[in-house]
Amino acid sequence: MSHWFKGSHLTPAEVTADDFVYSGQLREPEYTSSIFNASINSASVHKFPVLNGLGVSVARADIAPGGVLPLHTHPGATEIILVARGAVTAGLISSDNAVYVKTVEEGDIMVFPQGLLRFLVNTGGTEALIWVSFGSPSPGLQVLNTALFGNNLDSELLEKITLLGDDEVQRLKGILGEYCI
Amino acid sequence: MSHWFKGSHLTPAEVTADDFVYSGQLREPEYTSSIFNASINSASVHKFPVLNGLGVSVARADIAPGGVLPLHTHPGATEIILVARGAVTAGLISSDNAVYVKTVEEGDIMVFPQGLLRFLVNTGGTEALIWVSFGSPSPGLQVLNTALFGNNLDSELLEKITLLGDDEVQRLKGILGEYCI
Amino acid sequence: MSHWFKGSHLTPAEVTADDFVYSGQLREPEYTSSIFNASINSASVHKFPVLNGLGVSVARADIAPGGVLPLHTHPGATEIILVARGAVTAGLISSDNAVYVKTVEEGDIMVFPQGLLRFLVNTGGTEALIWVSFGSPSPGLQVLNTALFGNNLDSELLEKITLLGDDEVQRLKGILGEYCI
Amino acid sequence: MSHWFKGSHLTPAEVTADDFVYSGQLREPEYTSSIFNASINSASVHKFPVLNGLGVSVARADIAPGGVLPLHTHPGATEIILVARGAVTAGLISSDNAVYVKTVEEGDIMVFPQGLLRFLVNTGGTEALIWVSFGSPSPGLQVLNTALFGNNLDSELLEKITLLGDDEVQRLKGILGEYCI
Amino acid sequence: MSHWFKGSHLTPAEVTADDFVYSGQLREPEYTSSIFNASINSASVHKFPVLNGLGVSVARADIAPGGVLPLHTHPGATEIILVARGAVTAGLISSDNAVYVKTVEEGDIMVFPQGLLRFLVNTGGTEALIWVSFGSPSPGLQVLNTALFGNNLDSELLEKITLLGDDEVQRLKGILGEYCI
Amino acid sequence: MSHWFKGSHLTPAEVTADDFVYSGQLREPEYTSSIFNASINSASVHKFPVLNGLGVSVARADIAPGGVLPLHTHPGATEIILVARGAVTAGLISSDNAVYVKTVEEGDIMVFPQGLLRFLVNTGGTEALIWVSFGSPSPGLQVLNTALFGNNLDSELLEKITLLGDDEVQRLKGILGEYCI
Repeated sequence: MSHWFKGSHLTPAEVTADDFVYSGQLREPEYTSSIFNASINSASVHKFPVLNGLGVSVARADIAPGGVLPLHTHPGATEIILVARGAVTAGLISSDNAVYVKTVEEGDIMVFPQGLLRFLVNTGGTEALIWVSFGSPSPGLQVLNTALFGNNLDSELLEKITLLGDDEVQRLKGILGEYCI
Repeated sequence: MSHWFKGSHLTPAEVTADDFVYSGQLREPEYTSSIFNASINSASVHKFPVLNGLGVSVARADIAPGGVLPLHTHPGATEIILVARGAVTAGLISSDNAVYVKTVEEGDIMVFPQGLLRFLVNTGGTEALIWVSFGSPSPGLQVLNTALFGNNLDSELLEKITLLGDDEVQRLKGILGEYCI
Repeated sequence: MSHWFKGSHLTPAEVTADDFVYSGQLREPEYTSSIFNASINSASVHKFPVLNGLGVSVARADIAPGGVLPLHTHPGATEIILVARGAVTAGLISSDNAVYVKTVEEGDIMVFPQGLLRFLVNTGGTEALIWVSFGSPSPGLQVLNTALFGNNLDSELLEKITLLGDDEVQRLKGILGEYCI
Repeated sequence: MSHWFKGSHLTPAEVTADDFVYSGQLREPEYTSSIFNASINSASVHKFPVLNGLGVSVARADIAPGGVLPLHTHPGATEIILVARGAVTAGLISSDNAVYVKTVEEGDIMVFPQGLLRFLVNTGGTEALIWVSFGSPSPGLQVLNTALFGNNLDSELLEKITLLGDDEVQRLKGILGEYCI
Repeated sequence: MSHWFKGSHLTPAEVTADDFVYSGQLREPEYTSSIFNASINSASVHKFPVLNGLGVSVARADIAPGGVLPLHTHPGATEIILVARGAVTAGLISSDNAVYVKTVEEGDIMVFPQGLLRFLVNTGGTEALIWVSFGSPSPGLQVLNTALFGNNLDSELLEKITLLGDDEVQRLKGILGEYCI
Repeated sequence: MSHWFKGSHLTPAEVTADDFVYSGQLREPEYTSSIFNASINSASVHKFPVLNGLGVSVARADIAPGGVLPLHTHPGATEIILVARGAVTAGLISSDNAVYVKTVEEGDIMVFPQGLLRFLVNTGGTEALIWVSFGSPSPGLQVLNTALFGNNLDSELLEKITLLGDDEVQRLKGILGEYCI
């Protein structure tokens, strides 16, 4: 069985059905961000080690009415979202700076190629539940707001490399400095 | 944008947001097999061409109470099932002939490594809805019952390579000869 | 030299020519199954560790006259068979349930794409010797008969997911319960 | 020769040495951005078709004293920069929002894993010349400033998904609306 | 079936069992080189198009007693040789210039990592028959003697880049100028 | 951050900016071969461990006027050379024994597909500086002269597999026996 069980130090004889099942953090919305009114929980290889080498993982996103999954990328995988409940306005920005925005209804899917900027806004008026599929066990996640303002990146340097003004940078560092989505 | 849009003969200027969205066949159970009381609809690259080269696809399975997704493989991808509604008893058979069986509840996921035999039985008493993630745009599907009995494979040859008896083969060819899951 | 010697904990200075050569189990038919009158011996990465990361492995199959390599898959690799001696009737079942059957003569090759069901029957009247090439160091092997009947898979469950009758299942469990190809 | 010449419709007999050489746009700084005082020219597969399938490409960046390669990603490849002349302060932001900043001197290299945000500031006091290596023939490029402000992305939506204020968005759209790095 | 039949412009309905079988050029030694007393015939993707994308191919080598497969590489694949008849002295030269030489007997295999120099000498006293497995459908072949002397490479340049003397270069160009292994 | 930091046993918290920077051996020509009047220094994964799994590496080559990078291959990667200073005559020999020779000027690049024989001669009259990009963290290097003459490969065997004369072999073993490029 070893051709696939790359994620384990168990011998085949020690493997049980439980090793193939991940239970818990996808069952309910775990946390709703007070800023964005959204939450995301992923079952990537770090939490679910059997995925190692298997080329796929999943996540669950919940967005309150009016809530937002802010601009972000997954550096390591293509992403498909499936709207299980509600409706979202989803957007993708290409390498050519073209913007593709679309309202995605219950039962529809949208694909976001690896590494490009994307976002979701709950425009459906009800709680939205999104199931996410990734073509990698470790898609990674880089949220623009926390990458820019949620760390110790020097303000002057940040302003130089983004053209943002100092007032705006200080305001957003105030909001996001301690924040983790 | 061309580094990812491998599935299209469109020029970047002709691409619209609609090219990234697949709408329709995942919205509702399209068909419930009269034999297995189940249906499966996939959004693989053949139906959703933007997935070409992107390493991921999804499907929707519906299983009536007591229904079954019979023994099958996906030759081209690892699979993760996510039980969105109901509960199923899912099983995997390894290369060592070990059987891993587990009841998977709402909100849980189970992973099936590429190419190994697997099955699902709805043991939850209600309609089950399953969202499936594949680590390939073309996972393929080989259902054991139709691969053996749903074609013109010579009965004598089939019996030789499976040890099944002729009566059983004729009975199952009668049931599955015209059948397509 | 380290760019290729991924299968070893030896330092380059400890490597010898013997590490590149696998000797023994491919020299002779090691075992002929009493049920199928056939045997298979593989030099995959588990036996020949230098193959780790190198993308190829081989095996030897011997089939007595009238013998059979029963229905099986290799979940992890495409397979090419080369008929070195004798002749076999070989078959492949596609995802569309199409059956491709062909008599393969001495000196001919046949290719089986990854993960699809296949079989060989010795129809040449003499001992058949088959050399097998795999496009992976760990192709895996799943034999249908032992995956279904050569383990503790619950009979009632097995019948549900294959439509096989209980009499047939019990008969085949009797034959294959202790069997290993 | 066809095993590598995947980028061509030429027959092997029509190939000449010129097909392997790319000449011109890397010879000189082609353009220095008036906003960032920098330029970048790449020899990716779109300009140099023989790279198709070959897994590598290069680029040249020039940065005037005090100039900047603003925050950006390459969605499709890992990047190595080599400082051929001058010195730059280079930075990388990880998925954990950690910031790695380092002054890179002439003859040194720095690596940026695929898809993560990065930037370069010329802090050496002289013209900086940077040679860039990518582990893909089509690394792609997404510059944050133009992705956000250099297109028709609706201002209200942009503010919602970035938390930027409307004044700042309008100011930067004014600067970058027509701009292309 | 389309997930694997990447090598064809046929629709699945047009595919027949013959498309999976390659017959003929591997049946007999096709040609024995008058210089090296050896021949090689390969079934790579150019001759057997169904292999496209499938990651494996095979070849047949025949070496007369005392004959030689001269120093060569396969730039695109790892190679396993299987000595089906006779015995050969096989050698591999590593990136560290280490030489690994071993006599390989009937039924033994030897592996040669991608791109490294290798050779075979028939030291068994009888006709040797070798089956070769490659981990790619297009392994390529570069024979040192013809790469150096069997083309129009300028003698002075050749001497500069190999340190070979002019007399030796002229002698070998005389032998190999018209030669093709 | 773990999705990319495959080359380290550090935890993310222990990583610093220094881990992404390689400093030193590319700054200056380290050694100029007394035979070939050239030197090469590479920053592959063995020296720069963060490259592990990242698919790219670089090297620096220096060639004195009239100097030579003698015939060699990189078994594990495609190579792009960039002439940063001076001019070289570069050549590539294909699997068809075709020779592609071209003078590459300052600011031009030339690509060499994986595993094929190649060489560079400084024909520009001044010191040449070449930056090299590889599409792998471990390209490997096999120099023909040292692979043939810089080890203990038996002379008689070497002559058999290359057709070189014994006088020439002894002469070159004398020159290269202790030599390492």
